[in-house]
Amino acid sequence: MAIDYQSLAVEGVQALSPYQPGKPISELARELGLNPDEIIKLASNENPLGPSSKAMAAAKAALSDACLYPDGNGYDLKQKLSARFNVTADQLTLGNGSNDVLEVIARCFAGPGSEVVFSQYAFAVYPLATQAVGATPVAVPAKDWGHDLDAMAAAVTEHTRLVFVANPNNPTGTVHDADALETFLGKIPENVLVVLDEAYCEYMTGEKDPDGVALLSRFPNLIVCRTFSKAWGLAGLRVGYSISSPAIADILNRVRQPFNVSLVALAAATAVLDDDEYLQRSREINTAGLKQLEGAFEQMGLRYIPSAGNFVAVEVGPQALGVYQALLARGVIVRPVEGYGMPNHLRVSVGLPEQNELFIDALAKALAAAGHGG
Amino acid sequence: MAIDYQSLAVEGVQALSPYQPGKPISELARELGLNPDEIIKLASNENPLGPSSKAMAAAKAALSDACLYPDGNGYDLKQKLSARFNVTADQLTLGNGSNDVLEVIARCFAGPGSEVVFSQYAFAVYPLATQAVGATPVAVPAKDWGHDLDAMAAAVTEHTRLVFVANPNNPTGTVHDADALETFLGKIPENVLVVLDEAYCEYMTGEKDPDGVALLSRFPNLIVCRTFSKAWGLAGLRVGYSISSPAIADILNRVRQPFNVSLVALAAATAVLDDDEYLQRSREINTAGLKQLEGAFEQMGLRYIPSAGNFVAVEVGPQALGVYQALLARGVIVRPVEGYGMPNHLRVSVGLPEQNELFIDALAKALAAAGHGG
Repeated sequence: MAIDYQSLAVEGVQALSPYQPGKPISELARELGLNPDEIIKLASNENPLGPSSKAMAAAKAALSDACLYPDGNGYDLKQKLSARFNVTADQLTLGNGSNDVLEVIARCFAGPGSEVVFSQYAFAVYPLATQAVGATPVAVPAKDWGHDLDAMAAAVTEHTRLVFVANPNNPTGTVHDADALETFLGKIPENVLVVLDEAYCEYMTGEKDPDGVALLSRFPNLIVCRTFSKAWGLAGLRVGYSISSPAIADILNRVRQPFNVSLVALAAATAVLDDDEYLQRSREINTAGLKQLEGAFEQMGLRYIPSAGNFVAVEVGPQALGVYQALLARGVIVRPVEGYGMPNHLRVSVGLPEQNELFIDALAKALAAAGHGG
Repeated sequence: MAIDYQSLAVEGVQALSPYQPGKPISELARELGLNPDEIIKLASNENPLGPSSKAMAAAKAALSDACLYPDGNGYDLKQKLSARFNVTADQLTLGNGSNDVLEVIARCFAGPGSEVVFSQYAFAVYPLATQAVGATPVAVPAKDWGHDLDAMAAAVTEHTRLVFVANPNNPTGTVHDADALETFLGKIPENVLVVLDEAYCEYMTGEKDPDGVALLSRFPNLIVCRTFSKAWGLAGLRVGYSISSPAIADILNRVRQPFNVSLVALAAATAVLDDDEYLQRSREINTAGLKQLEGAFEQMGLRYIPSAGNFVAVEVGPQALGVYQALLARGVIVRPVEGYGMPNHLRVSVGLPEQNELFIDALAKALAAAGHGG
């Protein structure tokens, strides 16, 4: 008798649908028979500048040691991060992207019988990581597409172990300022961990933007997660980190895989922290690109969610998937967000000015073909 | 009142001791004030040849896309692996090293209430992955330092979900031939998954060596795990994989992180599969190096466990940790294995001929200083 192997999986895993990443350029090129160079991908919130030359030089140099295991403690990178954020090395946990850190947190602190609170429309990895460990996801309805922090605090029960807060949030781009975040943190019991996911924090341009790291001394239950995948331009190498109390970091470091960050990723991330000029350019091109996209949407009469990240969710109506497909046929990859419960939106990442322009042009044509505005 | 965050961790995690990796060269250099080039590391079963030039060329080329996410489906690498092993792409699961795959397997199929069987002296990741998911580890006493396959089969109960078999095994180097493995697999119920960890299989030189992949068609409960970290020389980049039935691979692929393998690792692994000459040289240098080390141990009157891997465990007596320290002082890093319950042994990886010679010389001096043979 054939065994149903799915039935042998642990309960949370049986019900799991995998994460849907942005369509890779190589995949669309194969499907459409296109030259990959003709395709524009604005689907994964990647840095359009190309990688930092300092990071690349360090990565190339590291490759000659590719047959050796990486430093499992990430000594050099932790030294650099410690100095930059004025924290101690034992407050740091390195991950294979911040996705890895988020997942390790769930595996350390949540399981069957515990509840994990996050917002509607928040990053897809929170419910996935929750479900994979058999914990109960508690999705709190959003307010104006953003986190309803009061409602999230009110959703905490005696069973809650973790609260995920994305600030800015992906895929909506919404953000809370420092005051709102502090008020929220003040309401969460100390035995409930708050995971503040600041993957996009380097793009914030507000006057009262919060700095999670500065809050650590006052909120010992806080874990701040950051990444080198966005403004630092190293998504392909996979490196992220968390900053927390040493006690929490000690637990996370027991559970992460001993060599979870590659030697090349460690070298590149260590080097890119010396390239603040790159970071500055990343920010500038993003601020200008957001303005360009939002201006075009306004001209086209499309509603969008004002964004503090390097992407913007634009409302194209109930035929959003058709518009997505029409854009693909024109070699432009954006991100459908129906999986986030946003069937009328598409999320577009900020590209270089000419990429944004090509996207806007393709969008106008796709909408016209779909009879939008009729 | 200060919260004890360790007490908030899930039960298995609270009791977890982290994996103890081999000491990195950079760490010893810092501690002893040595030039890293003067240090020989034979502690992590790394390939002493340096990386394949074909792999490095591909990795360097991939770096220019470092700001883009990797292909989460690993299309190109899966195509190459499929062709090489005559399996379909949907039988493959890629991991951030085979460590990642081993851990994902445990998370998919084991949890509180389930038992996981492995051998005494087997790879440390099996008990760690078991404990982290709250399952019960069942360590079966070894026989002549190797897996006692009959006893392992007999240890399977109605609660057993996974059996880990390392062939060859690390850190002992012991191996079972094809007949023994098939007999064992024939005894395991189909609803118990057997994870055959073949991380070192490329080094085997026996006449009746098993090939896990060839067994898949007869044993649908088999998962074969392999790595690019050993004979393929890419430990620093982190890439491994499993081959299983599509049904099992489908579950594993839901739980692995969507971008668990970096773009550089994918490129290098895809390219190195075209470099069979590199693999052949890796094997040759290993066979010669094993002979060199074993011959020296015999001359020195030291017992060792005959090895089918790229390392050998040598018995230096109850002062093994002292010998390890004395070797460190001479700039030679090997691996103490007291954590494996082998306090009298040290594990040394096969290096280049001159590295092996330097190690043998340092070992003789360290033993003399420790009064060995007296």
